[in-house]
Amino acid sequence: MSEYTLENIAQVVEILREKSPLTHCITNVVTVKDCANAVLAVGASPIMANAPEEAEEIVGISNSLVINIGTLTKEQIETMKKSAKFAIENNKPFILDPVGVGISNIRNQTPIDIITNSKPSIIRGNLSEIKAIAMMYDILDECTMAKGVDVAQCDIINKDTLISNCNLIKNISEKLNTTIAVSGPIDIISDGHDVYTIENGDAMMSRITGSGCMLGCVLGAYLAVTNPLEAAITGTLVMGIAGELAAKTARDNNKGTGSFGIYLIDELSKLNKSTILSQSKLNKM
Amino acid sequence: MSEYTLENIAQVVEILREKSPLTHCITNVVTVKDCANAVLAVGASPIMANAPEEAEEIVGISNSLVINIGTLTKEQIETMKKSAKFAIENNKPFILDPVGVGISNIRNQTPIDIITNSKPSIIRGNLSEIKAIAMMYDILDECTMAKGVDVAQCDIINKDTLISNCNLIKNISEKLNTTIAVSGPIDIISDGHDVYTIENGDAMMSRITGSGCMLGCVLGAYLAVTNPLEAAITGTLVMGIAGELAAKTARDNNKGTGSFGIYLIDELSKLNKSTILSQSKLNKM
Amino acid sequence: MSEYTLENIAQVVEILREKSPLTHCITNVVTVKDCANAVLAVGASPIMANAPEEAEEIVGISNSLVINIGTLTKEQIETMKKSAKFAIENNKPFILDPVGVGISNIRNQTPIDIITNSKPSIIRGNLSEIKAIAMMYDILDECTMAKGVDVAQCDIINKDTLISNCNLIKNISEKLNTTIAVSGPIDIISDGHDVYTIENGDAMMSRITGSGCMLGCVLGAYLAVTNPLEAAITGTLVMGIAGELAAKTARDNNKGTGSFGIYLIDELSKLNKSTILSQSKLNKM
Repeated sequence: MSEYTLENIAQVVEILREKSPLTHCITNVVTVKDCANAVLAVGASPIMANAPEEAEEIVGISNSLVINIGTLTKEQIETMKKSAKFAIENNKPFILDPVGVGISNIRNQTPIDIITNSKPSIIRGNLSEIKAIAMMYDILDECTMAKGVDVAQCDIINKDTLISNCNLIKNISEKLNTTIAVSGPIDIISDGHDVYTIENGDAMMSRITGSGCMLGCVLGAYLAVTNPLEAAITGTLVMGIAGELAAKTARDNNKGTGSFGIYLIDELSKLNKSTILSQSKLNKM
Repeated sequence: MSEYTLENIAQVVEILREKSPLTHCITNVVTVKDCANAVLAVGASPIMANAPEEAEEIVGISNSLVINIGTLTKEQIETMKKSAKFAIENNKPFILDPVGVGISNIRNQTPIDIITNSKPSIIRGNLSEIKAIAMMYDILDECTMAKGVDVAQCDIINKDTLISNCNLIKNISEKLNTTIAVSGPIDIISDGHDVYTIENGDAMMSRITGSGCMLGCVLGAYLAVTNPLEAAITGTLVMGIAGELAAKTARDNNKGTGSFGIYLIDELSKLNKSTILSQSKLNKM
Repeated sequence: MSEYTLENIAQVVEILREKSPLTHCITNVVTVKDCANAVLAVGASPIMANAPEEAEEIVGISNSLVINIGTLTKEQIETMKKSAKFAIENNKPFILDPVGVGISNIRNQTPIDIITNSKPSIIRGNLSEIKAIAMMYDILDECTMAKGVDVAQCDIINKDTLISNCNLIKNISEKLNTTIAVSGPIDIISDGHDVYTIENGDAMMSRITGSGCMLGCVLGAYLAVTNPLEAAITGTLVMGIAGELAAKTARDNNKGTGSFGIYLIDELSKLNKSTILSQSKLNKM
């Protein structure tokens, strides 16, 4: 229940660059390269492996694990379950990114299996995804169906819905006994006790594929060097600030979404202590 | 058999940005991220899913479907067949991009199965691919083998071969009872009645991977908001114009093919009504 | 045992652009698009296919083959074995890139099977990977475990360890009867008789994913037009020079690793005879 200052966060950013932990990402085929480059850009060392035959060996040498269900296959689901189980048995922290949960049966069953059998350190997603998870655990009675892998229109967090959503996320986090990181125009992070909001970021982030997936992998990298709540705050700030700076560069140079995606990795790779201290819009509720 | 004006096309471009339909792409692992970013750039919302277990659920929530056979696996072939069948039964338009048809048995059998059992709204490809399809349906007696996934040298459409190729494409389109979109230095599009040609584009587009795949997915996005012929014309114009503008920027700044690929997404994301009206080189034959 | 001059190398660079051979890459899902774009950038024509059902057909039409084990699946392992066997039976040169060998059982068994049953023309990797291969063939008694898919700290080649590592690589190459290309701050290439070192490149190359994978595919492209030793020297010089120029552009413009990755493809696509002659840092030991 400690309070995290920007000084703490800036330190975590630097520690990751010093320690360069091995971050294992079992993720989708759409954005896997951007995920690897994002992990490298913030200073960690990524590995991506999908075969169930090597699941335990790879988790065994890794410092943390990311599970992103964006493009599941039967084989990958097996790898995810084995990896999550092995991670929890060996005290390796891991994050679950339940992309598109709520829109198909395997996108519901895979997260349920992983959450129930191998409690993740962090679950991250957009509000529609987190609500879909909450509904499956009877924490919520109803939720709006997401638009594919994107958030439902009514689940976009704004000033008016912030307080109620903060309470909701705190409640879900407490019930599931895990840290929850929700991304949106305003990000909400809770460990069931405290709630933080972050107002960094830019709307351009939702005009490219991979912003959410990269965030999940960056959180996974920070999980290797600090506790889940601080990892979630740090990674969300880092991605939000990088997104903001990248969008500014894209607009200033009359570029579109292609260049924005490249500038985002640029900013992640250049980001340091002073960027965190000067740019962060972090609030404790 | 209506005639499409640039005003019509420009309207379709704007309608896609307003409606942002969900475009489901079952596509190859090489260019899948560029496909998602291209769909986002023109204003639609992409989803990529490969598991047969969720095929019907994902098609069920999507507004249109793209099937690209670039890197087939046994599992993905099953997903494609189920998805195409479900799409046709539920009146969801879909486009088939038979990448490399003619070079292997599974690249022949998969399109045949899909075309025969679940008529696509559009089939798009380079001339070698479309001729390979035509030969399998006894519309053509012979064709030149493509160079891998690239067009055969003798199948590059130019001024001299334009008329005969237009007649050929119209004939194939009529026989297969579907819209055909052939890309090349001059693009040819026919619904079996009318034939349109487009002279936008740049040779640099064939020096990166994914130009054809992105085109297929962009056509798929427009399929969600208009009829196959207009969708094919609109998407082909949009990609061609974006390619032209991106190549100019790359050359003006002494950049190579890496930057060109990024500028292409930039231009897709910036393209609007006035770009269409001022840049289009569309002819009705 | 001939000596390769920069004139020879520059000629190979030009011949690849003229002949544009079909280069088949069975590679990982992380960097597959960059691999295709790198192959296109140096002038060859890439094809990527993973299904065992079409393995022999695709190798049959290809001029050379690349096998990269970065993200193995059961199906892909089958494709690799069939493809390697068919390549060797049909005198198609191929290169093996044993990504992460030493860190899991399938990453050990797959290269062993391929090396033993279908001798590759080139094996390329970082020093940790090549040492792991050597240990499995009893050429070395011990080696340091790599850090995931990255080189172990103690295996980074520098001035002090250069001579001993050159001798080691020459020995491994002789014993395995294949050309070995080791990448690092100083690259070492040997065919068991001669040893060449290359000091081009930039540290930024290890801050993005895919530098090694792209190198493997570029070597594969050159394998289609010359012998393994000259192909390895040419491809390593080409990638190193492109990396150096790209890093300079990134630094001069205060860009990060995202832009660097794009500039790398730019430089590969612009590289010509005069770049080779003016920039190469090639030494025969």
